[in-house]
Formats: sequence, C-alpha cells, structure tokens
Amino acid sequence: MTRDTLKNRMGKRRIDLRELKRDAGSRIVMLVVDGLGGYPHPDTGLSELETASLPNLDSIAGESACGLTIPIAPGITPGSGPGHMALFGYMPTRHRVGRGVMEALGIGLDLAEGDVAARGNFCVADGDGRLLDRRAGRIPSERSDELVALLDGIDVPGHKVSVHAVRDHRFVAVFHNIGPSSEATDTDPGLDGHMPLESQPVGPDSEELARAVNAFVAGSHEALKGKEAQAVALRGISSPPVLPSFPERFGLRPAAIAAYPMYRGLARLAGMDVLSTGRDFASELDTLKAVYEEAEHDFFFLHYKPADAAGEDGDFNGKVAALEALDSMLPQVLALDPDVLVIAGDHSTPAVFGGHSWHPVPLAIRSKLTKGDGAAAFTERSMASGSIGTVKAMSVMTLAMAHAGRLKKSGP
Amino acid sequence: MTRDTLKNRMGKRRIDLRELKRDAGSRIVMLVVDGLGGYPHPDTGLSELETASLPNLDSIAGESACGLTIPIAPGITPGSGPGHMALFGYMPTRHRVGRGVMEALGIGLDLAEGDVAARGNFCVADGDGRLLDRRAGRIPSERSDELVALLDGIDVPGHKVSVHAVRDHRFVAVFHNIGPSSEATDTDPGLDGHMPLESQPVGPDSEELARAVNAFVAGSHEALKGKEAQAVALRGISSPPVLPSFPERFGLRPAAIAAYPMYRGLARLAGMDVLSTGRDFASELDTLKAVYEEAEHDFFFLHYKPADAAGEDGDFNGKVAALEALDSMLPQVLALDPDVLVIAGDHSTPAVFGGHSWHPVPLAIRSKLTKGDGAAAFTERSMASGSIGTVKAMSVMTLAMAHAGRLKKSGP
Repeated sequence: MTRDTLKNRMGKRRIDLRELKRDAGSRIVMLVVDGLGGYPHPDTGLSELETASLPNLDSIAGESACGLTIPIAPGITPGSGPGHMALFGYMPTRHRVGRGVMEALGIGLDLAEGDVAARGNFCVADGDGRLLDRRAGRIPSERSDELVALLDGIDVPGHKVSVHAVRDHRFVAVFHNIGPSSEATDTDPGLDGHMPLESQPVGPDSEELARAVNAFVAGSHEALKGKEAQAVALRGISSPPVLPSFPERFGLRPAAIAAYPMYRGLARLAGMDVLSTGRDFASELDTLKAVYEEAEHDFFFLHYKPADAAGEDGDFNGKVAALEALDSMLPQVLALDPDVLVIAGDHSTPAVFGGHSWHPVPLAIRSKLTKGDGAAAFTERSMASGSIGTVKAMSVMTLAMAHAGRLKKSGP
Repeated sequence: MTRDTLKNRMGKRRIDLRELKRDAGSRIVMLVVDGLGGYPHPDTGLSELETASLPNLDSIAGESACGLTIPIAPGITPGSGPGHMALFGYMPTRHRVGRGVMEALGIGLDLAEGDVAARGNFCVADGDGRLLDRRAGRIPSERSDELVALLDGIDVPGHKVSVHAVRDHRFVAVFHNIGPSSEATDTDPGLDGHMPLESQPVGPDSEELARAVNAFVAGSHEALKGKEAQAVALRGISSPPVLPSFPERFGLRPAAIAAYPMYRGLARLAGMDVLSTGRDFASELDTLKAVYEEAEHDFFFLHYKPADAAGEDGDFNGKVAALEALDSMLPQVLALDPDVLVIAGDHSTPAVFGGHSWHPVPLAIRSKLTKGDGAAAFTERSMASGSIGTVKAMSVMTLAMAHAGRLKKSGP
C-alpha cells in the first residue's frame, strides 16, 4: 500500500493546494528575518523588537494581517533547516534535512541526486582508536586544511568520496552516487573517551551507504597516521530530502535571494531558482530590484541573517541594531509594491537565551486585501492579538497564496 | 485491516468524545450566522460588525468566552459544506460533501443511502459533441424545465436516474441505488470548446457509477437532439458522506431549524432531526420557542442566512443591516436562557470581497460558566484576544459540550 493509498483509506485527507491553486498573475515577496522573535531583557522588560526603533516595520504591522507562527510545535526549538522548510510550506517533521546536508549547503556544495553528506570532526585518538578529544583541540583551519586533503584521497572501493573543509575541526564528507533516500547512523559516539561506533544502515536502501561510511572511517586511520588528529567522527549521515517541488505545489516561479550559502541551498532543495547575489542584505535588495520587474519569477524569498547572528551571540543591543538596520532598508522593498509582502521568521533567537528558542515568531502579511487588524507595533506581544492568531509556520505559504488571490474555494 | 487497527498502527488516536460524554440534562443553542465574519471597509477602516449597532451581540460578547475559528485551515476559503461540517464537529477535509450532493440538498431533495448526486449544466454543442457553451447562454428556467423533463426519461439499464431542475442552466441528476461511498470524475471538461470527458470511477466501489454516468450522458444526446441545448456536463458526482451520527457522538438529541433547504440537508446528513419551519429567521425563532420546552431535544442548530447573502452581493450596508436585524431578534433567544448559547459562523463573507473568505470567524460561547473574558464588542478584532484564542471550527462542539457540563475528565 502506498502512502497515498493509506492516507485515503484512513480518510485523513489533507488540503492539497495543487487542487486549489490558480494563477492570478500576482507576485509575493517573502522576507525571512532569521531569528526574528526575541524575549524581554530582564532590566527593561522589553524584547529586542520592543526596544528597537522600527518605524517601517510598525507601519507595515498596522497595514497587515498579523499573527504569530509556531515553527514546528509548541515548545520545540527548531534548527534553521526545519524553520525554513516550514515557511516554504513543507511539514518540517516529515521533510528532514540532515546535519551533513546542512553543513554541505552551508559551504555552498551543490549536492547531486544520490549524494549523501556527513558532518565530520577531526579527533585525537589513542593507540586503540579511542576518541580522546572529539574536536582535536579545535584545531584551526590553517592546520586542518592539510588533513582534509589527506581524507579527500581515501579510496573507498566502488564509490567516490570527496571531503571539504568547513572550519577548524569540522569538515563535510560527501559519498557520491549512493542512491536517494539513504541514511546511516553516526560513527561519533557523542562523548569523549569512547570508541567510534560502526555505522549502521537506517532502512533497507542504506546498506551500501553504511559499508562506504565504515570503509571511509577505516581508511582515515591510515591517512591520518602520525598527524595532529588521528581519527574522525561522522554524524548526520543522509541524502538530501526529496521534496515535492515548490513550483509545482504552489504554481509559482520562485526565486531565492540569500547572501548565505545555507539558505540558498535550502531554497534549491525546494526547487527554487537561486539567484546570484552579494554578501549582504543590501546586495540582496539590489538583486531583488534588478529581477523584480522581469516576468520570470512571481515569488521572491529574501533572507536577512544579522538578527539571528546577534541573537546567537547573546548580543541584545547588536540584535536591536540589526533589526533597526533592516527597518531602514525596507522602503526599498515597499517601493516595489509587491501584491503580497510576507515578513516572517524561521524561529526566535532571543539574545537573552543566546540561541534559537521555541517561542512563537511574529508574522505580518501585507496585501491589497489587508487594511490592518490592530497590531499597533511589530512586536511579539502586539502580534499575539492579530487576526491571523497563532498558527503553524507551515500555514504561512497558504495564507500568502490566499492573499495573492491564488487559491480557489475549498468545497461547495 | 480495520480502520481502527490501521489508526492504531498509525498512532493517530484522537480524543473520542463518545468516551467522555455524559448527560448533564443541559441544553445547547448553536446559532450559525452564515458568513458572519467581515473585513474593514476601505473608507472607514471598520468591518461590518464594527459598523453595525449590535447592542445584544456586544452584550453577549461581554458575558461569553470569545475567540476566533478557522473553518478548515489558515488561508483556505471554505464552501458552505465544509464550513458547517466543521461546526457540527466533523473534520471537514475528511467528511466531504460533493457539489452534486450540495445542489441536491439545496433544492430540498432527500437523498437515500446508496444515491449519488451530480450537478449538471445544459450546454450548446456542435455536431461532433464539442461543448461550445457550457451554460447554454444561461438558458432561463422557463425553457430549461422542458429539457429537464426530457432528461428525466433517459433509460439507463439497471438504474433509475431522476433529474431535477435547479435554476437556469443548472440541474441535479440523481443516480439511485448505486451503493454508498461511490464517486466518479466529472464529464465537464471545465472549459468551453472541449469534448465532454468520459467519467471514471474514483476508487474500487465506483465502476458501476461511472458506467451509469456515461450511459446517461450518451442518452442525453438522443434526448436533447434538435433542442436549444444539445448536451450536458456533469460534475461533483458522489454519494453523500456517511457521517458518524451526531446524536451518538455527542449524546445529544439535536434539532435543526433552518429556513434554507441546503442547511436542513446538511443537518440531516449528520443525523439531526430537521424541524419544519417557515421561510425566514423570525419563523425559525417561532419554531425554536415552540419546541424548546419540550423534552425531545437538547441541541438546537439555528441558521441565519441574510448576512452571507448580503456579503456575497458585495453589499456592505446590506450586511450591516442583516446583522442589526439579527441583533434585534436575539432577545427572543436569550429569553429562553439556554444553558449554552453558541454564536458562530461557518466562514467569513466580507462584503468588500463579495464572497466567502479564509478569515477567522468570531465565536462567542455564553454559559453559566462564563462571566466574560474581556471581549468588549462582538467584532473580529475584539474576539482575536478572547480567552478561547484562534481555534479550528471543529473544536466548537467540544467547547460547547464542555460549557454544557457534558464532558468528563479525559484520563485519570
């Protein structure tokens, strides 16, 4: 029984947007502010959004349908992968992006169908192969680059394995042409002082992968003999998810504009056209303006990173400044007058937590159909009483499509 | 594998109200205001509910638990069928009412188990059978009634097919005694200038239906030869959904009071007693008052149509007036002092859109357990910060049962 048959027999039929979509000729800009949501500072009782001076965002909130999004589920803190998958309309628990794939996307590798990526660490090991330090003293990139070159030459019979430096003790190993939907368990034991684990296949199509992984690890002992790090630990070993095509699902011709490779990679997984752009948001805006009037795309995913980066650093004032910098550039987006402007976040990154969190994330959808619904300011508290309510982030694309006039009525 | 076994294997066990229900002797009135929610008028920034003078609704909001309902899913605009299914406690994506069935209910046909209904159009066709005009110039009822009579005589071997006029170019064909849970694809190609499609079975129990549909279409060519319309196009061909019984699920003895046939039909599908009433809401109220004190029913579904009708017409002031007219009659409901009064809508119909929309719909639940939770007025904006929050419309029955003291604790 296929999954679809099972679903029909269960009668658990979800809304299939492919049945409802229509081409209204309208255009959607989705600005994803990475780590958008925050949390009140203990001294002031005000969050980053409440502290910052954000005249444009506040004005957009006043003209928009507003609400909060839950990236995965209440209380669940998402990584960037599920955070973006949800905003692109994919069920984040179903369409998983492994750690190896995320690292590969993060350094701009373009994984082909059938490739499998693993995140690797260089380790210090004793004579028995026990991993004494799974980060090899955070060996700096200058010295680990040489080790990467040694691994890149390992012979794994029947397969090509390429190894790519990430930073310091981290690398990515790509097992080429293994076959789609392969996954194998980690060789990283997760704790110092333990022997590396043998990788096991996850599911029936992954035996070839596990064999290749274990052959690569065996080869690494030989290659690294007498070096500063003598072993490797691999984790997050899987092929990229095979996603239903975003263009096909939504009937949109999407363009992704993102300065950071990881977000370009996530967009490419969904089947978006990834446009070349510069290294910051100002360059992204130049790219957007250059392509907006061409008829080639009608959906534009725009990514803003600095808010998350400051939040991760625990830098409250830095995050405030990053939000204010974004705000000052928004008139360039508004000048394009897109039919629908979505401002969303992949997750919250409160500076007071110094990392991602599970808190619902502000959402504004501005269209010709919105006149504002009372959100007086672009803040977590104000959005909580917006007309959209608190919804799953997976619903954002549906709401965007509705506001774009791109959905027919469901049911008679 | 039975559905229950399957469900357990899938691990998707939902709350089963049949295990929790208890008879508290309390009575629930559910007033469904069709197309209740609206949207701000561009000139005033106020919605229909905000514009209207609604002293009784505002007072009820002040005494109620309030919130907003999402009929199907965020961004999805529902038809009347799924809108009501959800308020009756059925998952609207699982229990679908086809277009043919809705049309049949709309003209007051009482479909028997095993019947299948199809929505039909009269069409102008060329000599090859190509459908040139799928509405036959919107042929008026006076002239299409004759054509309906011709179709009603078509001989489909092994099956009785009855044909019923709806209005203008529209009719309903009922294929009798085909078997439950049958569904077949449309013969309507969806665009003028195309040949009609051959109907195909949807699922294994529908081959007999597809055969009958194709035989009927073949017979129609003969029956309509030389007439103003020479062909038909059928769509939405399915049996009524087999719904779990509302009385059994909720332990309630429900009565439906609705002036319009379609809503009586939907209530009958759920297993409600459909009471005879007049042609307007005043008559419905007379019916309610007459039966309320009898011990035969403890749930009363009351339907108010004019708000939706004005919204569909794009008549903002008309919708305001329809809401004010409703408000002025509400003291008659309040005088009965029901244990629980639910005021809900099947969907929003903003006059500025001139049709149904996806926007969350105001909800008030007034009971002996509510003292009001801060909704100062019966409006979309005010309800957004009510204590119920923004919930799926499918939850309304559960909330009504809770307020009626009709649900036990779940789990020890």
